[in-house]
Amino acid sequence: MFDGPLTCGLDPAERRARLRLARGRRIGPVLFQEALQHFGSARAACARLATASDAEVAREEEGLAAAGGRFLVLGDADYPAPLAALRDAPPVLSAIGGLGLLARPILAIVGARNASAAGCRLADTLARDLGQAGFAIVSGLARGIDAAAHQAALASGTVAVMAGGIDQVYPPLNAGLHQAIAERGLLLSELPWGSPPVARAFPRRNRIVSGLSMGVVVIEAAARSGSLITAHRAAEQGREVFVVPGSPADPRYAGSNSLIQDGAILTAHANDILGVLGKPRVPRQALEKPNKKPMSPDAEQILSTLGSVPTAVDELVRRCQVSAAAVAEVLLALELEGRLERHRGNRVSLI
Amino acid sequence: MFDGPLTCGLDPAERRARLRLARGRRIGPVLFQEALQHFGSARAACARLATASDAEVAREEEGLAAAGGRFLVLGDADYPAPLAALRDAPPVLSAIGGLGLLARPILAIVGARNASAAGCRLADTLARDLGQAGFAIVSGLARGIDAAAHQAALASGTVAVMAGGIDQVYPPLNAGLHQAIAERGLLLSELPWGSPPVARAFPRRNRIVSGLSMGVVVIEAAARSGSLITAHRAAEQGREVFVVPGSPADPRYAGSNSLIQDGAILTAHANDILGVLGKPRVPRQALEKPNKKPMSPDAEQILSTLGSVPTAVDELVRRCQVSAAAVAEVLLALELEGRLERHRGNRVSLI
Repeated sequence: MFDGPLTCGLDPAERRARLRLARGRRIGPVLFQEALQHFGSARAACARLATASDAEVAREEEGLAAAGGRFLVLGDADYPAPLAALRDAPPVLSAIGGLGLLARPILAIVGARNASAAGCRLADTLARDLGQAGFAIVSGLARGIDAAAHQAALASGTVAVMAGGIDQVYPPLNAGLHQAIAERGLLLSELPWGSPPVARAFPRRNRIVSGLSMGVVVIEAAARSGSLITAHRAAEQGREVFVVPGSPADPRYAGSNSLIQDGAILTAHANDILGVLGKPRVPRQALEKPNKKPMSPDAEQILSTLGSVPTAVDELVRRCQVSAAAVAEVLLALELEGRLERHRGNRVSLI
Repeated sequence: MFDGPLTCGLDPAERRARLRLARGRRIGPVLFQEALQHFGSARAACARLATASDAEVAREEEGLAAAGGRFLVLGDADYPAPLAALRDAPPVLSAIGGLGLLARPILAIVGARNASAAGCRLADTLARDLGQAGFAIVSGLARGIDAAAHQAALASGTVAVMAGGIDQVYPPLNAGLHQAIAERGLLLSELPWGSPPVARAFPRRNRIVSGLSMGVVVIEAAARSGSLITAHRAAEQGREVFVVPGSPADPRYAGSNSLIQDGAILTAHANDILGVLGKPRVPRQALEKPNKKPMSPDAEQILSTLGSVPTAVDELVRRCQVSAAAVAEVLLALELEGRLERHRGNRVSLI
């Protein structure tokens, strides 16, 4: 790891040079750090290597800003420290959402895409309990365990690391979750805007998921599964590996059980994790809901009009004198927080 | 542990004295060994302590012999050595069946009485695979996991340690299994003939189950369950504890998972056990089916008459010219071996 210039803030010219170097076509994360070390700075490296143009980088940065995001460059003061310690740390991350989450202690929850209902319930319970204990929950926004963990941690704080560019919603099933995390959590990607999520991007994405984390919780890892590879990679990174066990009769747990045999920590409850890592010391401020916008007057009015008795959405619009679109947006937000129930006849109630 | 006289054969007078001492009302296993040590022999102890009478012991021994059994007295050459090493070794065991099984390496399989179907299938698979590898399988003849393990190991060799006297069929559900083990495996009990299986006898029985074994396999141990206690006791005895994991969502595995957290060996397949204990070196002779009577001419004829197409039992009786009782006995034996399927209309077929 290249020390010194990476750990303090960057001057604007060096920062821009790092972006150009990082977006150079043949420059991967390891080569990026080697180039910095060899040439002494990205500015010096840019004079000698084929990098992206200043205009290309400026265009991507503007597009990202228009979507409400920004770059985190390796060396920026708020680039996450655990990730910076990796020899293949992403040279640049695109970020949309609440960067404050990266100052929190982070745990990853990963697992099967074709997860069982029981597995998803376990992901939900663990994400809620660990979120309540003060951890931000990071995962890969895949279907199955990833989605269940993100969903359950939306209220307490969740980070999604994407396998494609930060604008690439994948899988389409998770479009709503993607949107909700952009608004209330944090989206991260190391790939340029517009990059499709190709197969080889998934294991590379997973090193960021574990790299951000103190530990990785694995739920339903079959033999030879991606989650199993993530767990091994996390152990190589020096992260704790926590594994939920399952019946040997269920092939979804074959990899999980072998991880425990190899020394991973059998995990049945959040306390099994807190017992190892300790309850995190979280700055009081960081525990406030991340990236939470103050509630709009419209939202407050809609919320006060709702109750446990189902109410027609049309009636809400009429009573609150707010546009139908604004009502729909507030209802979606409540639904994602698990506070709203929908009923037949386009009626809703608070839970 | 009292050494010397216990490890070689006993002279008949000392052996009879040990039986009288063992059956003395207030003399438990620990006091038995202390008395031997203090007085130097059971003969000397009998002169000073309140023991059972010679006639009482003779009566019990005759009754046991009439049922085809005999006593194993601590100190007898064929008293199982791993059990003799315990400070609370049973001073005497009643035994009915194939004593040769005690010369084999032994593994215990124990678990929930209210076991799940999946748990019973796991017990079945492990018992078969470990039996095939050369282990005799010992358990407690309870319903659930115990019964499944015994049943699956009937063909390769199984030992049942009973919580009451050796004549006490308990639970009644397992009467057929009790009978089959008497005929083809080995029944053991430390309690006198006729003793009912009272509550406090169960944990005492369990120390014999684990004491006979190199290791104990635990399937579906709930929190605060008897199986959990057996596992802890086995660890105290220096036995390996192998535990099948399960979902944290299933309370039947709460104790199991906590055992693994405390250092027990996560076990998904027989190979996980063989990898620790090694494949046992079994005398060729001992691997022959224990206590298996050569097949009677009647049985051979019935077997050759049966096939995969269901046949009426009446027709079997007629064709084979054998009594209905003899046919029923052969069919039961085949059924216990898992080779016979019963169909409606009192018809049977081979599997």
